Amino acid sequence: MISKNQLKLLRALGQKKQRKAHGLFLVEGEKNVLELVGAQLTVKQVFATSDFLSANEQALSRFDCIEASLDELTKASSLVTNNAAVAIVEIPSHDIPEAKGLMIALDGVSDPGNLGTIIRVADWYGIKHIVASTDCADPYNPKTIRATMGSFGRVQVSLTDLPSYLEQASIPVYGAFLEGESVHSTQFSAQGILLMGSESHGVRAEAEKHVTDKITIPAFGGAESLNVAMATGIILDNLRRQHS
Amino acid sequence: MISKNQLKLLRALGQKKQRKAHGLFLVEGEKNVLELVGAQLTVKQVFATSDFLSANEQALSRFDCIEASLDELTKASSLVTNNAAVAIVEIPSHDIPEAKGLMIALDGVSDPGNLGTIIRVADWYGIKHIVASTDCADPYNPKTIRATMGSFGRVQVSLTDLPSYLEQASIPVYGAFLEGESVHSTQFSAQGILLMGSESHGVRAEAEKHVTDKITIPAFGGAESLNVAMATGIILDNLRRQHS
Repeated sequence: MISKNQLKLLRALGQKKQRKAHGLFLVEGEKNVLELVGAQLTVKQVFATSDFLSANEQALSRFDCIEASLDELTKASSLVTNNAAVAIVEIPSHDIPEAKGLMIALDGVSDPGNLGTIIRVADWYGIKHIVASTDCADPYNPKTIRATMGSFGRVQVSLTDLPSYLEQASIPVYGAFLEGESVHSTQFSAQGILLMGSESHGVRAEAEKHVTDKITIPAFGGAESLNVAMATGIILDNLRRQHS
Repeated sequence: MISKNQLKLLRALGQKKQRKAHGLFLVEGEKNVLELVGAQLTVKQVFATSDFLSANEQALSRFDCIEASLDELTKASSLVTNNAAVAIVEIPSHDIPEAKGLMIALDGVSDPGNLGTIIRVADWYGIKHIVASTDCADPYNPKTIRATMGSFGRVQVSLTDLPSYLEQASIPVYGAFLEGESVHSTQFSAQGILLMGSESHGVRAEAEKHVTDKITIPAFGGAESLNVAMATGIILDNLRRQHS
Protein backbone atom coordinates (compact mmCIF):
# COMPACT_ATOMS: atom_id res chain seq x y z
CA MET A 1 0.00 0.00 0.00
CA ILE A 2 1.11 3.55 -0.68
CA SER A 3 1.07 5.59 2.54
CA LYS A 4 -0.31 9.11 2.69
CA ASN A 5 3.16 10.58 2.95
CA GLN A 6 4.43 8.52 0.06
CA LEU A 7 1.49 9.58 -2.08
CA LYS A 8 2.19 13.19 -1.18
CA LEU A 9 5.81 12.81 -2.27
CA LEU A 10 4.90 11.02 -5.51
CA ARG A 11 2.50 13.81 -6.40
CA ALA A 12 4.95 16.54 -5.40
CA LEU A 13 7.61 15.15 -7.73
CA GLY A 14 5.40 16.08 -10.66
CA GLN A 15 6.59 19.65 -10.04
CA LYS A 16 10.03 20.94 -10.99
CA LYS A 17 10.44 22.98 -7.80
CA GLN A 18 9.73 19.95 -5.64
CA ARG A 19 12.06 17.73 -7.68
CA LYS A 20 14.82 20.25 -7.08
CA ALA A 21 14.04 20.56 -3.35
CA HIS A 22 14.00 16.78 -2.82
CA GLY A 23 16.73 15.93 -5.34
CA LEU A 24 14.43 13.18 -6.61
CA PHE A 25 12.47 12.36 -9.76
CA LEU A 26 9.86 9.87 -10.91
CA VAL A 27 10.27 7.00 -13.31
CA GLU A 28 6.88 5.78 -14.47
CA GLY A 29 5.76 2.78 -16.48
CA GLU A 30 6.93 -0.82 -16.55
CA LYS A 31 9.51 -0.48 -19.30
CA ASN A 32 11.10 2.59 -17.75
CA VAL A 33 11.21 1.08 -14.26
CA LEU A 34 12.90 -2.07 -15.59
CA GLU A 35 15.53 0.13 -17.24
CA LEU A 36 16.60 1.15 -13.75
CA VAL A 37 17.93 -2.35 -13.09
CA GLY A 38 21.00 -1.81 -15.22
CA ALA A 39 21.27 1.95 -14.79
CA GLN A 40 23.82 3.77 -12.63
CA LEU A 41 21.17 5.59 -10.64
CA THR A 42 20.19 5.45 -6.98
CA VAL A 43 16.66 4.08 -6.69
CA LYS A 44 14.92 5.08 -3.44
CA GLN A 45 11.71 3.10 -3.84
CA VAL A 46 9.71 1.14 -6.36
CA PHE A 47 5.91 1.06 -6.10
CA ALA A 48 4.38 -1.65 -8.22
CA THR A 49 1.58 -4.18 -8.59
CA SER A 50 2.07 -7.64 -7.12
CA ASP A 51 2.00 -9.05 -10.67
CA PHE A 52 4.82 -6.78 -11.76
CA LEU A 53 6.83 -7.48 -8.62
CA SER A 54 6.55 -11.25 -8.88
CA ALA A 55 7.26 -11.27 -12.64
CA ASN A 56 10.46 -9.29 -12.02
CA GLU A 57 11.39 -10.53 -8.56
CA GLN A 58 15.02 -11.24 -9.26
CA ALA A 59 15.70 -8.10 -11.29
CA LEU A 60 14.17 -5.90 -8.62
CA SER A 61 15.73 -7.71 -5.63
CA ARG A 62 18.17 -4.93 -4.74
CA PHE A 63 15.43 -2.28 -4.64
CA ASP A 64 13.09 -1.28 -1.83
CA CYS A 65 9.79 -2.43 -3.36
CA ILE A 66 6.32 -1.57 -2.12
CA GLU A 67 3.29 -3.41 -3.39
CA ALA A 68 0.32 -1.31 -4.48
CA SER A 69 -2.85 -1.79 -6.47
CA LEU A 70 -3.14 -0.63 -10.07
CA ASP A 71 -5.73 1.86 -8.89
CA GLU A 72 -3.42 3.36 -6.25
CA LEU A 73 -0.56 3.55 -8.76
CA THR A 74 -2.66 5.24 -11.40
CA LYS A 75 -3.78 7.82 -8.85
CA ALA A 76 -0.20 8.44 -7.77
CA SER A 77 1.26 8.76 -11.24
CA SER A 78 0.98 11.35 -13.96
CA LEU A 79 0.28 8.68 -16.55
CA VAL A 80 -3.26 8.59 -17.85
CA THR A 81 -3.25 4.92 -18.70
CA ASN A 82 -2.77 2.03 -16.34
CA ASN A 83 0.57 2.12 -14.70
CA ALA A 84 1.94 -1.00 -13.04
CA ALA A 85 5.12 0.58 -11.66
CA VAL A 86 6.54 3.89 -10.45
CA ALA A 87 9.99 4.50 -8.97
CA ILE A 88 11.45 7.36 -6.97
CA VAL A 89 15.03 7.95 -8.07
CA GLU A 90 17.80 10.34 -7.01
CA ILE A 91 18.68 13.06 -9.50
CA PRO A 92 22.33 12.28 -10.28
CA SER A 93 24.89 15.03 -9.98
CA HIS A 94 27.34 15.26 -12.82
CA ASP A 95 29.75 17.76 -14.29
CA ILE A 96 29.03 19.57 -17.52
CA PRO A 97 30.74 17.37 -20.12
CA GLU A 98 33.79 18.49 -22.05
CA ALA A 99 33.03 19.29 -25.70
CA LYS A 100 34.32 16.22 -27.51
CA GLY A 101 33.05 13.34 -29.62
CA LEU A 102 29.54 13.68 -31.03
CA MET A 103 27.13 15.71 -28.91
CA ILE A 104 23.79 17.47 -29.16
CA ALA A 105 23.09 21.03 -28.02
CA LEU A 106 19.52 22.28 -27.61
CA ASP A 107 18.54 25.94 -27.63
CA GLY A 108 15.15 26.70 -26.06
CA VAL A 109 13.54 23.30 -26.65
CA SER A 110 10.85 23.71 -24.02
CA ASP A 111 8.48 20.83 -24.75
CA PRO A 112 9.18 17.89 -22.39
CA GLY A 113 7.88 15.33 -24.89
CA ASN A 114 10.21 16.63 -27.59
CA LEU A 115 13.16 16.53 -25.20
CA GLY A 116 12.33 12.94 -24.25
CA THR A 117 12.05 11.91 -27.91
CA ILE A 118 15.41 13.58 -28.61
CA ILE A 119 16.99 11.64 -25.71
CA ARG A 120 15.58 8.41 -27.18
CA VAL A 121 16.89 9.03 -30.70
CA ALA A 122 20.24 10.27 -29.29
CA ASP A 123 20.53 6.94 -27.48
CA TRP A 124 19.70 5.05 -30.71
CA TYR A 125 22.60 6.80 -32.42
CA GLY A 126 24.96 6.34 -29.46
CA ILE A 127 25.13 9.98 -28.36
CA LYS A 128 25.89 10.17 -24.63
CA HIS A 129 25.73 13.90 -23.94
CA ILE A 130 23.19 16.63 -24.55
CA VAL A 131 23.87 20.18 -23.39
CA ALA A 132 20.80 22.39 -23.22
CA SER A 133 20.06 26.05 -22.60
CA THR A 134 18.63 26.70 -19.14
CA ASP A 135 15.18 27.44 -20.63
CA CYS A 136 14.88 23.97 -22.15
CA ALA A 137 12.43 21.47 -20.65
CA ASP A 138 13.49 19.81 -17.40
CA PRO A 139 15.14 16.45 -18.23
CA TYR A 140 13.51 15.04 -15.06
CA ASN A 141 9.96 16.07 -15.97
CA PRO A 142 7.83 12.88 -15.88
CA LYS A 143 6.71 13.57 -19.48
CA THR A 144 10.33 13.73 -20.60
CA ILE A 145 11.28 10.53 -18.78
CA ARG A 146 8.27 8.75 -20.25
CA ALA A 147 9.06 9.83 -23.83
CA THR A 148 12.64 8.54 -23.53
CA MET A 149 11.26 4.98 -23.39
CA GLY A 150 14.05 3.93 -21.07
CA SER A 151 16.89 5.90 -22.68
CA PHE A 152 17.05 8.38 -19.76
CA GLY A 153 19.62 6.14 -18.05
CA ARG A 154 22.07 6.22 -20.95
CA VAL A 155 22.06 9.85 -22.07
CA GLN A 156 23.18 12.69 -19.81
CA VAL A 157 21.43 16.04 -20.23
CA SER A 158 23.15 19.11 -18.75
CA LEU A 159 21.39 22.46 -18.54
CA THR A 160 23.93 25.25 -18.86
CA ASP A 161 24.67 28.69 -20.27
CA LEU A 162 24.61 27.45 -23.85
CA PRO A 163 26.22 30.39 -25.71
CA SER A 164 29.22 30.31 -23.33
CA TYR A 165 29.49 26.55 -23.68
CA LEU A 166 29.51 26.77 -27.46
CA GLU A 167 31.97 29.67 -27.40
CA GLN A 168 34.64 27.66 -25.61
CA ALA A 169 34.10 24.47 -27.63
CA SER A 170 36.97 23.67 -29.98
CA ILE A 171 35.01 21.20 -32.14
CA PRO A 172 32.67 22.14 -35.04
CA VAL A 173 29.17 23.36 -34.17
CA TYR A 174 26.64 22.18 -36.79
CA GLY A 175 23.59 24.40 -36.49
CA ALA A 176 20.28 23.26 -38.02
CA PHE A 177 18.63 26.03 -40.04
CA LEU A 178 16.01 26.14 -42.77
CA GLU A 179 18.77 27.45 -45.01
CA GLY A 180 22.18 25.86 -44.89
CA GLU A 181 24.19 23.16 -46.63
CA SER A 182 22.18 20.01 -47.32
CA VAL A 183 22.94 17.23 -44.85
CA HIS A 184 23.11 14.97 -47.91
CA SER A 185 26.28 16.72 -49.08
CA THR A 186 27.80 17.97 -45.81
CA GLN A 187 31.16 16.39 -44.89
CA PHE A 188 30.77 15.96 -41.16
CA SER A 189 33.77 15.95 -38.87
CA ALA A 190 34.22 12.92 -36.58
CA GLN A 191 33.71 15.19 -33.58
CA GLY A 192 31.06 17.87 -33.44
CA ILE A 193 28.09 19.43 -31.71
CA LEU A 194 24.70 19.26 -33.43
CA LEU A 195 22.84 22.42 -32.39
CA MET A 196 19.03 22.38 -32.66
CA GLY A 197 16.70 25.30 -31.95
CA SER A 198 13.07 25.25 -30.93
CA GLU A 199 10.31 24.86 -33.51
CA SER A 200 8.99 28.33 -32.83
CA HIS A 201 12.19 30.37 -32.53
CA GLY A 202 14.88 28.29 -34.22
CA VAL A 203 18.46 28.75 -33.06
CA ARG A 204 18.64 32.15 -31.35
CA ALA A 205 21.23 34.80 -32.25
CA GLU A 206 23.31 34.29 -29.10
CA ALA A 207 23.88 30.62 -29.93
CA GLU A 208 24.00 31.16 -33.71
CA LYS A 209 27.17 33.27 -33.29
CA HIS A 210 29.10 30.13 -32.42
CA VAL A 211 27.85 27.98 -35.30
CA THR A 212 30.70 26.91 -37.58
CA ASP A 213 28.53 25.12 -40.18
CA LYS A 214 24.90 25.81 -41.06
CA ILE A 215 23.14 22.67 -42.22
CA THR A 216 19.66 21.87 -43.45
CA ILE A 217 17.49 18.85 -44.22
CA PRO A 218 16.54 19.07 -47.89
CA ALA A 219 12.78 19.41 -48.50
CA PHE A 220 10.98 17.84 -51.43
CA GLY A 221 7.36 18.71 -50.74
CA GLY A 222 5.07 21.29 -49.20
CA ALA A 223 5.65 21.06 -45.45
CA GLU A 224 7.23 24.20 -44.01
CA SER A 225 9.09 22.56 -41.17
CA LEU A 226 9.74 19.37 -39.27
CA ASN A 227 9.29 18.66 -35.60
CA VAL A 228 12.57 19.33 -33.75
CA ALA A 229 12.90 15.74 -32.51
CA MET A 230 12.27 14.40 -36.03
CA ALA A 231 14.86 16.79 -37.46
CA THR A 232 17.39 15.75 -34.81
CA GLY A 233 16.93 12.08 -35.69
CA ILE A 234 17.29 12.67 -39.42
CA ILE A 235 20.48 14.71 -38.99
CA LEU A 236 21.99 12.15 -36.57
CA ASP A 237 21.37 9.47 -39.18
CA ASN A 238 23.27 11.55 -41.74
CA LEU A 239 26.12 12.09 -39.27
CA ARG A 240 26.39 8.42 -38.29
CA ARG A 241 26.44 7.38 -41.94
CA GLN A 242 29.89 9.02 -42.08
CA HIS A 243 31.13 8.35 -38.55
CA SER A 244 29.99 5.10 -37.01
CA MET B 1 -21.48 33.66 -32.19
CA ILE B 2 -21.62 29.89 -32.39
CA SER B 3 -25.23 28.68 -32.27
CA LYS B 4 -26.33 25.74 -30.16
CA ASN B 5 -26.71 23.54 -33.22
CA GLN B 6 -23.33 24.54 -34.56
CA LEU B 7 -21.71 23.79 -31.21
CA LYS B 8 -23.43 20.41 -31.20
CA LEU B 9 -22.04 19.63 -34.65
CA LEU B 10 -18.53 20.83 -33.76
CA ARG B 11 -18.50 18.59 -30.72
CA ALA B 12 -19.98 15.62 -32.60
CA LEU B 13 -17.20 15.77 -35.19
CA GLY B 14 -14.73 14.78 -32.49
CA GLN B 15 -16.13 11.25 -32.93
CA LYS B 16 -15.30 8.99 -35.83
CA LYS B 17 -18.84 7.66 -36.16
CA GLN B 18 -20.26 11.18 -36.42
CA ARG B 19 -17.60 12.25 -38.92
CA LYS B 20 -18.61 9.33 -41.09
CA ALA B 21 -22.33 10.05 -40.73
CA HIS B 22 -21.93 13.73 -41.62
CA GLY B 23 -19.11 13.32 -44.14
CA LEU B 24 -17.37 16.19 -42.35
CA PHE B 25 -14.24 16.76 -40.26
CA LEU B 26 -12.70 19.49 -38.15
CA VAL B 27 -9.65 21.58 -38.92
CA GLU B 28 -8.46 23.31 -35.76
CA GLY B 29 -5.85 25.98 -35.11
CA GLU B 30 -4.84 29.08 -37.04
CA LYS B 31 -2.08 27.49 -39.12
CA ASN B 32 -4.22 24.54 -40.15
CA VAL B 33 -7.23 26.71 -41.03
CA LEU B 34 -5.06 28.97 -43.21
CA GLU B 35 -3.81 25.88 -45.05
CA LEU B 36 -7.39 25.42 -46.29
CA VAL B 37 -7.08 28.55 -48.43
CA GLY B 38 -4.94 26.83 -51.03
CA ALA B 39 -6.26 23.31 -50.50
CA GLN B 40 -8.63 21.44 -52.80
CA LEU B 41 -11.17 20.81 -50.10
CA THR B 42 -14.74 22.00 -49.62
CA VAL B 43 -14.92 24.22 -46.56
CA LYS B 44 -18.42 24.43 -45.05
CA GLN B 45 -17.77 27.00 -42.34
CA VAL B 46 -14.97 28.78 -40.54
CA PHE B 47 -15.46 29.84 -36.92
CA ALA B 48 -12.83 32.32 -35.78
CA THR B 49 -12.05 35.31 -33.60
CA SER B 50 -12.59 38.80 -35.02
CA ASP B 51 -8.82 39.34 -34.84
CA PHE B 52 -8.13 36.27 -36.93
CA LEU B 53 -10.88 37.12 -39.42
CA SER B 54 -9.71 40.68 -39.96
CA ALA B 55 -6.04 39.70 -40.18
CA ASN B 56 -6.90 37.17 -42.91
CA GLU B 57 -9.89 38.87 -44.52
CA GLN B 58 -8.80 38.49 -48.11
CA ALA B 59 -7.54 34.93 -47.78
CA LEU B 60 -10.78 33.82 -46.16
CA SER B 61 -13.13 35.79 -48.43
CA ARG B 62 -14.50 32.76 -50.28
CA PHE B 63 -15.42 30.97 -47.04
CA ASP B 64 -18.54 31.24 -44.91
CA CYS B 65 -17.01 32.81 -41.79
CA ILE B 66 -18.64 33.12 -38.40
CA GLU B 67 -17.15 35.31 -35.71
CA ALA B 68 -16.81 33.83 -32.23
CA SER B 69 -14.98 34.61 -29.03
CA LEU B 70 -11.79 32.78 -28.06
CA ASP B 71 -13.72 31.34 -25.14
CA GLU B 72 -16.49 29.94 -27.37
CA LEU B 73 -13.91 28.50 -29.77
CA THR B 74 -11.92 26.83 -27.04
CA LYS B 75 -15.08 25.24 -25.69
CA ALA B 76 -16.04 24.01 -29.15
CA SER B 77 -12.68 22.57 -30.06
CA SER B 78 -10.69 19.59 -28.87
CA LEU B 79 -7.57 21.73 -28.49
CA VAL B 80 -6.56 22.40 -24.93
CA THR B 81 -4.80 25.67 -25.65
CA ASN B 82 -6.35 28.81 -27.06
CA ASN B 83 -7.73 28.26 -30.47
CA ALA B 84 -8.48 31.23 -32.70
CA ALA B 85 -10.01 29.27 -35.58
CA VAL B 86 -11.90 26.05 -36.36
CA ALA B 87 -13.25 24.96 -39.73
CA ILE B 88 -15.77 22.34 -40.74
CA VAL B 89 -14.62 20.66 -43.94
CA GLU B 90 -16.07 17.96 -46.21
CA ILE B 91 -14.26 14.62 -46.16
CA PRO B 92 -13.05 14.30 -49.76
CA SER B 93 -13.85 11.14 -51.67
CA HIS B 94 -11.00 9.68 -53.64
CA ASP B 95 -10.05 6.42 -55.24
CA ILE B 96 -7.41 4.17 -53.74
CA PRO B 97 -4.24 5.23 -55.58
CA GLU B 98 -2.45 3.00 -58.05
CA ALA B 99 0.83 1.64 -56.66
CA LYS B 100 3.44 3.83 -58.38
CA GLY B 101 6.09 6.38 -57.56
CA LEU B 102 7.15 6.61 -53.92
CA MET B 103 4.44 5.76 -51.38
CA ILE B 104 4.04 4.85 -47.74
CA ALA B 105 2.01 1.92 -46.40
CA LEU B 106 1.07 1.70 -42.72
CA ASP B 107 0.14 -1.52 -40.94
CA GLY B 108 -1.80 -1.06 -37.69
CA VAL B 109 -0.49 2.41 -36.83
CA SER B 110 -3.30 3.27 -34.46
CA ASP B 111 -2.05 6.41 -32.70
CA PRO B 112 -3.59 9.54 -34.31
CA GLY B 113 -0.62 11.72 -33.34
CA ASN B 114 1.84 9.32 -34.96
CA LEU B 115 -0.28 9.22 -38.12
CA GLY B 116 -0.36 13.03 -38.24
CA THR B 117 3.42 13.26 -37.77
CA ILE B 118 3.89 10.70 -40.55
CA ILE B 119 1.66 12.79 -42.86
CA ARG B 120 3.78 15.86 -42.04
CA VAL B 121 7.12 14.17 -42.76
CA ALA B 122 5.67 12.50 -45.88
CA ASP B 123 4.76 15.98 -47.12
CA TRP B 124 8.30 17.24 -46.34
CA TYR B 125 9.72 14.48 -48.56
CA GLY B 126 7.11 15.00 -51.29
CA ILE B 127 5.17 11.78 -50.78
CA LYS B 128 1.56 12.22 -51.92
CA HIS B 129 -0.02 8.91 -51.02
CA ILE B 130 -0.27 6.81 -47.89
CA VAL B 131 -2.20 3.56 -47.90
CA ALA B 132 -3.12 2.28 -44.47
CA SER B 133 -4.66 -0.88 -43.01
CA THR B 134 -8.24 -0.37 -41.89
CA ASP B 135 -7.23 -0.56 -38.22
CA CYS B 136 -4.92 2.45 -38.52
CA ALA B 137 -5.93 5.74 -36.89
CA ASP B 138 -8.60 7.78 -38.66
CA PRO B 139 -6.86 10.36 -40.91
CA TYR B 140 -9.69 12.79 -40.05
CA ASN B 141 -9.30 12.50 -36.26
CA PRO B 142 -8.74 16.05 -34.93
CA LYS B 143 -5.50 14.88 -33.25
CA THR B 144 -4.22 13.57 -36.58
CA ILE B 145 -5.14 16.78 -38.43
CA ARG B 146 -3.47 18.88 -35.74
CA ALA B 147 -0.23 16.86 -35.82
CA THR B 148 0.01 17.27 -39.61
CA MET B 149 0.70 20.99 -39.08
CA GLY B 150 -1.11 21.82 -42.30
CA SER B 151 0.12 18.91 -44.40
CA PHE B 152 -3.29 17.18 -44.36
CA GLY B 153 -4.24 19.02 -47.56
CA ARG B 154 -1.28 17.70 -49.57
CA VAL B 155 -1.09 14.04 -48.61
CA GLN B 156 -3.88 11.58 -49.33
CA VAL B 157 -4.42 8.77 -46.84
CA SER B 158 -6.47 5.77 -48.01
CA LEU B 159 -7.62 3.08 -45.60
CA THR B 160 -7.82 -0.23 -47.38
CA ASP B 161 -7.25 -3.97 -47.16
CA LEU B 162 -3.48 -3.58 -46.95
CA PRO B 163 -2.31 -7.16 -47.63
CA SER B 164 -4.40 -7.29 -50.85
CA TYR B 165 -3.12 -3.88 -51.88
CA LEU B 166 0.49 -4.93 -51.40
CA GLU B 167 -0.12 -8.26 -53.14
CA GLN B 168 -1.19 -6.62 -56.38
CA ALA B 169 1.51 -3.92 -56.33
CA SER B 170 4.18 -4.39 -58.99
CA ILE B 171 6.74 -2.07 -57.39
CA PRO B 172 9.16 -3.02 -54.57
CA VAL B 173 7.80 -3.13 -51.03
CA TYR B 174 10.45 -1.98 -48.52
CA GLY B 175 9.42 -3.26 -45.11
CA ALA B 176 10.96 -1.71 -41.99
CA PHE B 177 12.14 -4.36 -39.53
CA LEU B 178 14.58 -4.45 -36.65
CA GLU B 179 16.60 -6.86 -38.76
CA GLY B 180 17.11 -6.16 -42.42
CA GLU B 181 19.57 -4.48 -44.75
CA SER B 182 20.88 -1.17 -43.42
CA VAL B 183 19.22 1.81 -45.08
CA HIS B 184 22.74 3.23 -45.37
CA SER B 185 23.65 0.55 -47.89
CA THR B 186 20.28 -0.27 -49.51
CA GLN B 187 20.00 0.60 -53.20
CA PHE B 188 16.46 1.92 -53.36
CA SER B 189 14.44 1.71 -56.55
CA ALA B 190 13.00 4.98 -57.92
CA GLN B 191 9.52 3.60 -57.29
CA GLY B 192 8.54 1.75 -54.16
CA ILE B 193 6.31 1.40 -51.14
CA LEU B 194 7.79 1.99 -47.70
CA LEU B 195 5.88 -0.29 -45.32
CA MET B 196 5.90 0.61 -41.62
CA GLY B 197 4.34 -1.42 -38.81
CA SER B 198 3.15 -0.24 -35.42
CA GLU B 199 5.56 0.21 -32.54
CA SER B 200 3.98 -2.58 -30.56
CA HIS B 201 3.39 -5.23 -33.25
CA GLY B 202 5.70 -4.29 -36.10
CA VAL B 203 4.71 -5.35 -39.62
CA ARG B 204 2.25 -8.22 -39.23
CA ALA B 205 2.63 -11.56 -41.03
CA GLU B 206 -0.18 -10.89 -43.54
CA ALA B 207 1.57 -7.75 -44.81
CA GLU B 208 5.10 -9.13 -44.36
CA LYS B 209 4.40 -11.81 -46.99
CA HIS B 210 4.45 -9.11 -49.66
CA VAL B 211 7.68 -7.41 -48.58
CA THR B 212 10.33 -7.61 -51.31
CA ASP B 213 13.14 -5.97 -49.29
CA LYS B 214 13.58 -5.93 -45.52
CA ILE B 215 15.36 -2.80 -44.37
CA THR B 216 16.52 -1.46 -41.03
CA ILE B 217 17.86 1.74 -39.52
CA PRO B 218 21.31 0.97 -38.08
CA ALA B 219 21.56 1.44 -34.31
CA PHE B 220 24.67 2.70 -32.57
CA GLY B 221 23.54 2.92 -28.95
CA GLY B 222 21.28 1.37 -26.36
CA ALA B 223 17.74 2.29 -27.43
CA GLU B 224 15.67 -0.73 -28.42
CA SER B 225 13.45 0.98 -30.94
CA LEU B 226 12.44 4.26 -32.50
CA ASN B 227 9.01 5.86 -32.66
CA VAL B 228 7.27 4.83 -35.91
CA ALA B 229 6.99 8.42 -37.18
CA MET B 230 10.68 9.04 -36.45
CA ALA B 231 11.65 5.83 -38.23
CA THR B 232 9.49 6.79 -41.24
CA GLY B 233 11.22 10.18 -41.50
CA ILE B 234 14.72 8.71 -41.27
CA ILE B 235 14.00 6.10 -43.95
CA LEU B 236 12.38 8.67 -46.27
CA ASP B 237 15.52 10.78 -45.95
CA ASN B 238 17.61 7.79 -47.02
CA LEU B 239 15.27 7.13 -49.94
CA ARG B 240 15.25 10.73 -51.14
CA ARG B 241 19.02 10.92 -50.97
CA GLN B 242 18.99 8.50 -53.92
CA HIS B 243 15.82 9.61 -55.71
CA SER B 244 15.07 13.31 -55.50
